Amino acid sequence: MSIRIGILGYGNLSRGVESAIRQSSDTELVAVFTRRDPAGVQIRTEGVPVCSVDEIEKWTDKIDVLVLGGGSATDLPVQTPKYAELFNVIDSFDTHARIPEHYANVDDAAKKSGHIGIISVGWDPGMFSLLRMLSTAILPEGENYTFWGKGVSQGHSDAIRRIEGVKDARQYTIPVDAAVERVRSGENPTLTTREKHTRECFVVAEEGADLAAIENAIKTMPNYFDEYDTTVHFITEEELKRDHSGLPHGGFVIRSGVTGFEKEHKHIIEYNLKLDSNPEFTGAVILAYARAAYKLSANGETGCRTVFDVPPALLSPLSGEELRKNYL
Amino acid sequence: MSIRIGILGYGNLSRGVESAIRQSSDTELVAVFTRRDPAGVQIRTEGVPVCSVDEIEKWTDKIDVLVLGGGSATDLPVQTPKYAELFNVIDSFDTHARIPEHYANVDDAAKKSGHIGIISVGWDPGMFSLLRMLSTAILPEGENYTFWGKGVSQGHSDAIRRIEGVKDARQYTIPVDAAVERVRSGENPTLTTREKHTRECFVVAEEGADLAAIENAIKTMPNYFDEYDTTVHFITEEELKRDHSGLPHGGFVIRSGVTGFEKEHKHIIEYNLKLDSNPEFTGAVILAYARAAYKLSANGETGCRTVFDVPPALLSPLSGEELRKNYL
Repeated sequence: MSIRIGILGYGNLSRGVESAIRQSSDTELVAVFTRRDPAGVQIRTEGVPVCSVDEIEKWTDKIDVLVLGGGSATDLPVQTPKYAELFNVIDSFDTHARIPEHYANVDDAAKKSGHIGIISVGWDPGMFSLLRMLSTAILPEGENYTFWGKGVSQGHSDAIRRIEGVKDARQYTIPVDAAVERVRSGENPTLTTREKHTRECFVVAEEGADLAAIENAIKTMPNYFDEYDTTVHFITEEELKRDHSGLPHGGFVIRSGVTGFEKEHKHIIEYNLKLDSNPEFTGAVILAYARAAYKLSANGETGCRTVFDVPPALLSPLSGEELRKNYL
Repeated sequence: MSIRIGILGYGNLSRGVESAIRQSSDTELVAVFTRRDPAGVQIRTEGVPVCSVDEIEKWTDKIDVLVLGGGSATDLPVQTPKYAELFNVIDSFDTHARIPEHYANVDDAAKKSGHIGIISVGWDPGMFSLLRMLSTAILPEGENYTFWGKGVSQGHSDAIRRIEGVKDARQYTIPVDAAVERVRSGENPTLTTREKHTRECFVVAEEGADLAAIENAIKTMPNYFDEYDTTVHFITEEELKRDHSGLPHGGFVIRSGVTGFEKEHKHIIEYNLKLDSNPEFTGAVILAYARAAYKLSANGETGCRTVFDVPPALLSPLSGEELRKNYL
């Protein structure tokens, strides 16, 4: 019997989960729920219903794990605890400062209802978090460095789109090679925000817009761009579509630490991702943890979990015996 | 209260564990056990006794986790199940083909006695195994590649030393750049043993030895060298000591997979280690898992575990709350 997955919301991330389900024969998509008119939502998997979220309570005995595809700003803080009352749930909550509060809310709801909730799953937070934690446990004396890119930051692209005179935009986050080399050499440098990443923007302006004003508005935007060296290229809509329609991303987490009685030996642990599709990779990570949520729940466990808590074997469809034989 | 660690055997790996204990304030070394005359074993940590292994049974209430520093060929298959009857134990068993049998023996002993045994801990098997497993669970359609080096293979160095006329030797395993680049590009090539690694040997010959015969004996040695492109350098004892006395190692595990409705998106996951000291890094991994063994046992769990089974948070001295706040 397959693990029955439901998805709430149908944006890029949810399509990534849908795609991942097709590659995992032990899982099946049973329903997509939307706040929009279901008639207007066209999913890729044949024979699977798109339902109004108002009907979701009828599905409690037909879904093993509900994937929440919403955003961290307003959707997930409400949805994850709410639906943990009805289902095992999993989300990709990524507002770092609010994780303790979100964890507490999901833990409370999931414990009361007897479900499992796994939060903040993806690659960062998610796999990068796991690697930072593991590497620090192994090398307690050292420094962690996280570099993102080269890849499209959807948040930064959206921020540019909100500027007056901007029709569309795509922003790439790019690690600075010189900084990366210093870290990989084991130097353990202190790096400023500006030294670690640059930002490159491809902007389609409205006809007659003041390009200099747009460029200035981007480069001086607080938090998003003012602390970075940013370059802005104005291009046509056709060029944007032709050259920048993908959502590649990636990055790497490096732990640089020392061991030895005189702390004389350096060690570099690097976890590196090069992703053609950020939402599809994130969706694939979420599906693996959805499998774990199902197994934890089947084992009688309840409450909130993160990537730190889940025994790795639960992410795999293989048995412990198969894993030991083929992967150890 | 610290986690009380005992170590059986005192070779390079055990010294690595001893060194790691000094960097982890929640652990302490309480005794080293040896099959040799304890008077002849000088350890680095002051005030810690070196005892005959014959006395180990007197320590059952003074040790939380016993680290087995022995070899996989003859020591661990006997020692790990045997001492799992008395202690929580951890080993670095690395004879791949015998892992299922070793697991069963340790599981049986540990369950009967109410202890935890964690086997095959280190970086390969160990962290590399974990990353192969995690990456495969995330990207079920793809290929895994493991490259070792550049680094010293102690097994291959020992094999050279057994050749007649060889006084000492050091063998480096080196990944072939062209193969690595093909894998990192997402090409998913099929690679032969010879295409993946080369072997470089630094040999000190006995006076008057037949160098051509030694070189031929190395290059044609079954399993160890015959399937590789091998270079042999004859050097002096002084040069060996000056240039090749360290035990650096490392390598990388790459998962190259695809996602998408048309499988049109490639993803590369790479876990990369550059280690100045193989035994000290391995010792550091073992200590982190010893911490987990202690916590699992304190929680009432028994039986055998591998890196696949242990919730990552247990490797850290930090609480779940601290981990979520600082590493997620």
